[in-house]
Amino acid sequence: VICLLAGGTGGAKLARGIADVAGAEELTVIANTGDDVEVYGVHVSPDPDLITYWLADRIDERGWGIEGDTWHVMDALEAAGRPAWFRLGDADLAMCLVRTEALRRGARLTDAHAEVVHAMGVGSRVLPMSDDPVRTRVRTPRGWSDFQEFMIVQRSEGPVEEVQFDGAAEAHPSPEVLEALAAADAIVIGPSNPIISIGPILAVPGIREALVDARAPVVAVSPFVRGEVVKGPTEAFMAGAGLPPGTPGAAAAYEGLLDGFVADERVPGLDAPLLQTDVLMDGAEPRRRVAQETLDFAAGLGR
Amino acid sequence: VICLLAGGTGGAKLARGIADVAGAEELTVIANTGDDVEVYGVHVSPDPDLITYWLADRIDERGWGIEGDTWHVMDALEAAGRPAWFRLGDADLAMCLVRTEALRRGARLTDAHAEVVHAMGVGSRVLPMSDDPVRTRVRTPRGWSDFQEFMIVQRSEGPVEEVQFDGAAEAHPSPEVLEALAAADAIVIGPSNPIISIGPILAVPGIREALVDARAPVVAVSPFVRGEVVKGPTEAFMAGAGLPPGTPGAAAAYEGLLDGFVADERVPGLDAPLLQTDVLMDGAEPRRRVAQETLDFAAGLGR
Repeated sequence: VICLLAGGTGGAKLARGIADVAGAEELTVIANTGDDVEVYGVHVSPDPDLITYWLADRIDERGWGIEGDTWHVMDALEAAGRPAWFRLGDADLAMCLVRTEALRRGARLTDAHAEVVHAMGVGSRVLPMSDDPVRTRVRTPRGWSDFQEFMIVQRSEGPVEEVQFDGAAEAHPSPEVLEALAAADAIVIGPSNPIISIGPILAVPGIREALVDARAPVVAVSPFVRGEVVKGPTEAFMAGAGLPPGTPGAAAAYEGLLDGFVADERVPGLDAPLLQTDVLMDGAEPRRRVAQETLDFAAGLGR
Repeated sequence: VICLLAGGTGGAKLARGIADVAGAEELTVIANTGDDVEVYGVHVSPDPDLITYWLADRIDERGWGIEGDTWHVMDALEAAGRPAWFRLGDADLAMCLVRTEALRRGARLTDAHAEVVHAMGVGSRVLPMSDDPVRTRVRTPRGWSDFQEFMIVQRSEGPVEEVQFDGAAEAHPSPEVLEALAAADAIVIGPSNPIISIGPILAVPGIREALVDARAPVVAVSPFVRGEVVKGPTEAFMAGAGLPPGTPGAAAAYEGLLDGFVADERVPGLDAPLLQTDVLMDGAEPRRRVAQETLDFAAGLGR
């Protein structure tokens, strides 16, 4: 079993590649829930959903949401004078209703999201990092903001001065997360933002220790392609965390955790073996190649 | 101020007529919430919404929901293998989200529904009978069912052996309901099902007493038109409650409460003055006529 830690787009693409080359049932994704938000009374899990839509081959080409979705509910809210700043397509909202209905009847977030995964016909597991609420907050010169507010309303405008994961200190990894990490044959940290996508996962007490204690090698894939991120405000967050820019910063973010690192450039001072390869995943074929090379690399690493 | 007790269609049509002849701001509706249901994680209030859509001139010609609504969210649920037995149009769902979001942030149902009323641009007040949950349940030879299950899944097939209003005994009328009844110039019991539409309202301890103590005359409008109900399974419920069929049964249901009764036939043994007039409201003009005649009738009654 391959265990993949993932945030949004980059991690989701690698999840898709791993499912392709290893088989859907062989993949367990541990997904960031620090971006989760309650809006319009429903529980939205942006990263777990993005990963699930990718695995279902239903991701829209805009990079989020469900392909060909419509916007009737948001339009009705706006027509009624309720600004729908957090845009959810109708089919996307339907999946949020599936999750919310399960939560209202007392289900854990893990089981509630499993209903979404099942509804989308996905054969892999997509596990929220925790059943407890963790909420990423961002401080800029304008003050503290919820993560979605920073990303959508403030258009992720930095500089980012500080990031907090509210609730993380009191959160517990789900039993499924700990079991998946302990049982994994390989643990991959996906090419997601090290601070705000992988950071919340590692901030849940017990997950970092589970990576260190795992029998499987831990390999991270850099989110930097030719020195730049493909999508999202990664650099502002790395600067805010005092990390060097680019690939060396991503490696530094995981210091002490890695048995191997996958990047498209050499990393001075890296304390683990490097697989240097093109990590751009701009299609099904490169996604499969990066996945296969990463898994082969991990298989050759000892612990 | 006119205070109208109402369930679904009949009461909603009279609400529309009263708003037309007396002015929207002069109308306060006290609405049945015994049909409320949590489905897809959202709080649906069928009767308060039906009334609100009528008052907003947005009711669909099918008799419920919002005119010209679309069904993308329900279709997405069904495509994902989640049977959407309770069909909510996209715009209808948007109004449920407005209410649910308010409830999740701790608002009372009264204030949550007021947001829907405001979002629909309605100038009248539509008050849930209580902020506490009351749920109508129906017993047939098949056993006990929730109200919506009886109406939709079982297609309201009787015989109805018993009706219960779960939670009613512990429920309180909202302060707004008690104030509206105390301040009203006329109190009208709308032409809704006496057992399952008006019954839950009167089952909330304090509301019946507030009607008795009110300074305004209380007038009921019969839901029977030429001996038959226009819509819904009223007769099965009246038989189940041991009431005579037709108009006399409706009068009997409100025994001891009425200062006047409006019906299209004479009612033997009626203990209050009768206004005999056509109560069919099959258009804007007859809705206004029934409303005006009922208000004129109430104005001439003493207490």
